[in-house]
Amino acid sequence: MRSKLIDSISESASMKMGQIARERKHISDLINLGIGDTHFPTPVKIVDKTYNYMNEGKTHYDNGQGIITLREAISRYLAKRFNASYSPNEIIVTPGSKQGLFYCLFLLIEPGVKVGLFEPTWLAYVPMIKISGGKPVFCSLDHNMFTEKSLKELEKKNVNIIVINNPTNPSGKVWTSKELNLLVSFCLKKNIRIISDEVYNEIVYDKQFISLGSFESIKKTLMLIGSFSKTFSMTGWRLGYVCGKDHYIQDRLLKLQQIVATCPTTFTQYALADTLEEGLTTTRDMVTMYKKNRDLLYNAFKKTPLKPLFPDGTFYLWVDVGEDGDIFAEKILEDLHIIVVPGRDYGIHTQNYIRLSYALDTKIIREACRRFENAFKK
Amino acid sequence: MRSKLIDSISESASMKMGQIARERKHISDLINLGIGDTHFPTPVKIVDKTYNYMNEGKTHYDNGQGIITLREAISRYLAKRFNASYSPNEIIVTPGSKQGLFYCLFLLIEPGVKVGLFEPTWLAYVPMIKISGGKPVFCSLDHNMFTEKSLKELEKKNVNIIVINNPTNPSGKVWTSKELNLLVSFCLKKNIRIISDEVYNEIVYDKQFISLGSFESIKKTLMLIGSFSKTFSMTGWRLGYVCGKDHYIQDRLLKLQQIVATCPTTFTQYALADTLEEGLTTTRDMVTMYKKNRDLLYNAFKKTPLKPLFPDGTFYLWVDVGEDGDIFAEKILEDLHIIVVPGRDYGIHTQNYIRLSYALDTKIIREACRRFENAFKK
Repeated sequence: MRSKLIDSISESASMKMGQIARERKHISDLINLGIGDTHFPTPVKIVDKTYNYMNEGKTHYDNGQGIITLREAISRYLAKRFNASYSPNEIIVTPGSKQGLFYCLFLLIEPGVKVGLFEPTWLAYVPMIKISGGKPVFCSLDHNMFTEKSLKELEKKNVNIIVINNPTNPSGKVWTSKELNLLVSFCLKKNIRIISDEVYNEIVYDKQFISLGSFESIKKTLMLIGSFSKTFSMTGWRLGYVCGKDHYIQDRLLKLQQIVATCPTTFTQYALADTLEEGLTTTRDMVTMYKKNRDLLYNAFKKTPLKPLFPDGTFYLWVDVGEDGDIFAEKILEDLHIIVVPGRDYGIHTQNYIRLSYALDTKIIREACRRFENAFKK
Repeated sequence: MRSKLIDSISESASMKMGQIARERKHISDLINLGIGDTHFPTPVKIVDKTYNYMNEGKTHYDNGQGIITLREAISRYLAKRFNASYSPNEIIVTPGSKQGLFYCLFLLIEPGVKVGLFEPTWLAYVPMIKISGGKPVFCSLDHNMFTEKSLKELEKKNVNIIVINNPTNPSGKVWTSKELNLLVSFCLKKNIRIISDEVYNEIVYDKQFISLGSFESIKKTLMLIGSFSKTFSMTGWRLGYVCGKDHYIQDRLLKLQQIVATCPTTFTQYALADTLEEGLTTTRDMVTMYKKNRDLLYNAFKKTPLKPLFPDGTFYLWVDVGEDGDIFAEKILEDLHIIVVPGRDYGIHTQNYIRLSYALDTKIIREACRRFENAFKK
């Protein structure tokens, strides 16, 4: 039995806080800044189209790769928005981006393979790498930037694969062109495959987001991961995608999906194919609100001795609290009735951090700011 | 890379016929008896409830184990219908039963583990066992029955796990109490875990279906797999479940699901929780029609020199065609414009068989019967 492998994966800080949130639901003024989800509803048009397609009988098994019209829509979308050109046959629609990531890691990893991650990064990569038999290897950034110094560190780690999350959960980092170029040149030279998880590609503020899919040089070995969960506030729908120009890899990823899942849910794919483009207007409204929330929360923390990192994307604030993040999180749950995620699982030097989500109504964010400012006066 | 492992899995006969069906769509009188899906729409109540829950905002991440009300509904359903008592916390809702099966096999199998299958059986088990690192081992039945003779054969094979599909795709076999008792005693004695895939539990005709979940003796080690895909004609919804009383196993299966998939689609779970019980009236209507179709198709084949097996459940007819099933399938596609699935992947002695689905409108089944009877006169 593979139980040892699975037992080596500890309960994530994020799961633990989810559990706490369920247990404390009775606290009337509880504010949950712990979830990686938005409070917005899914756009009405997507919902209505879904209902239509259910009624039209799109309730059966369908193409294991994802329906062709959705793959065509994704192809157009990536080209238009991010200058990333993938033909529909280079795209696999998956039941959530996480599952696509799992296919990639399960396919690429053989026991002992080292997978490089830049800390802090999304906590879900580590368990996925571990159950696939690989070894997660954290590499530090240089003041949250990928520089020549970070490159030297990375070089020493001898990784075989790199997973980059851009924009980054939990830090809100958006990789610059310079950083991406540095990484790409290195990976090309060393024959390292990159898996670029870009599920927050639409949740970006002042900076411009650059997709690794727009880099021609790396396209042959790049695996690009996308999702609509954050873009259209549809985390519970479970729809994501994997793009790649290495047909050898894509064929095998598809085979994996057919073996594990048959196909993603069908009627939701039809609905999304019809609404992907126009749905983006809703996304812009959401991002406007997140930006307002970001400014409020960041500025509130700047008034305290705690050290927030300025986020250019995602809807998270990453804060150095100068003490154990688990203890800090418990304390503010008790004292301020606010749930946050302790930072320990996002890296190996992240114990003194916490992550806060601001994908909530601005009124709630204002109230959270008030509580933090009052509790942590400079 | 694990590509060798994945390449060891050949394209299934079922996939191949699916591809052929898509290519031949232009043939106006094509009859597709190749798909393991029903032509019925999903019951309107489930569709309407789904729409309601989407509008109510059940579009977010939810419990990784499946929502509690659906697990409660499944718990009541299994107890009432099949005398199989599982508490809601012993049930994990999965994105399709296939994915649940994958979790079970991935967890239980370590490289080299032998997994016993009774031929003919569902063709999807073999690739799943292989990618998990296990070795599929086919055991023969005795004139399609599990007898003392089959038991002796099974004993020699030294398997560690057994996957049974009851009712069986492709043969329509429904295991009797005597057969199940024989198997259970053996597995208890030999410490063999059983995974019982009962997704066709509602598609049964004259015989009574007995769930392994009703056997108290084996409950501690049994993993019971269920689905609503066939019951409510919702194959494209991707909802299934895994039940088990070994909490050590269930905890780890849940962890696997959280790592691979986060959670199943949410609003569909809410809809199903509300409609599970009343939806079964629609199922009874479907089964009445399948029974009529079964009788028509079986009787038609009895008039030919081909040898159909009488199916007690599922919506498949398994026919010994006395020659290579692949060649036979190609021939009747050309000559009769009928798609069937060649039998080769359902076992190791199944090359001369074909599988036909009769989950289609009776008019279409009548026409297929006419063509078969004309082409294969005794």
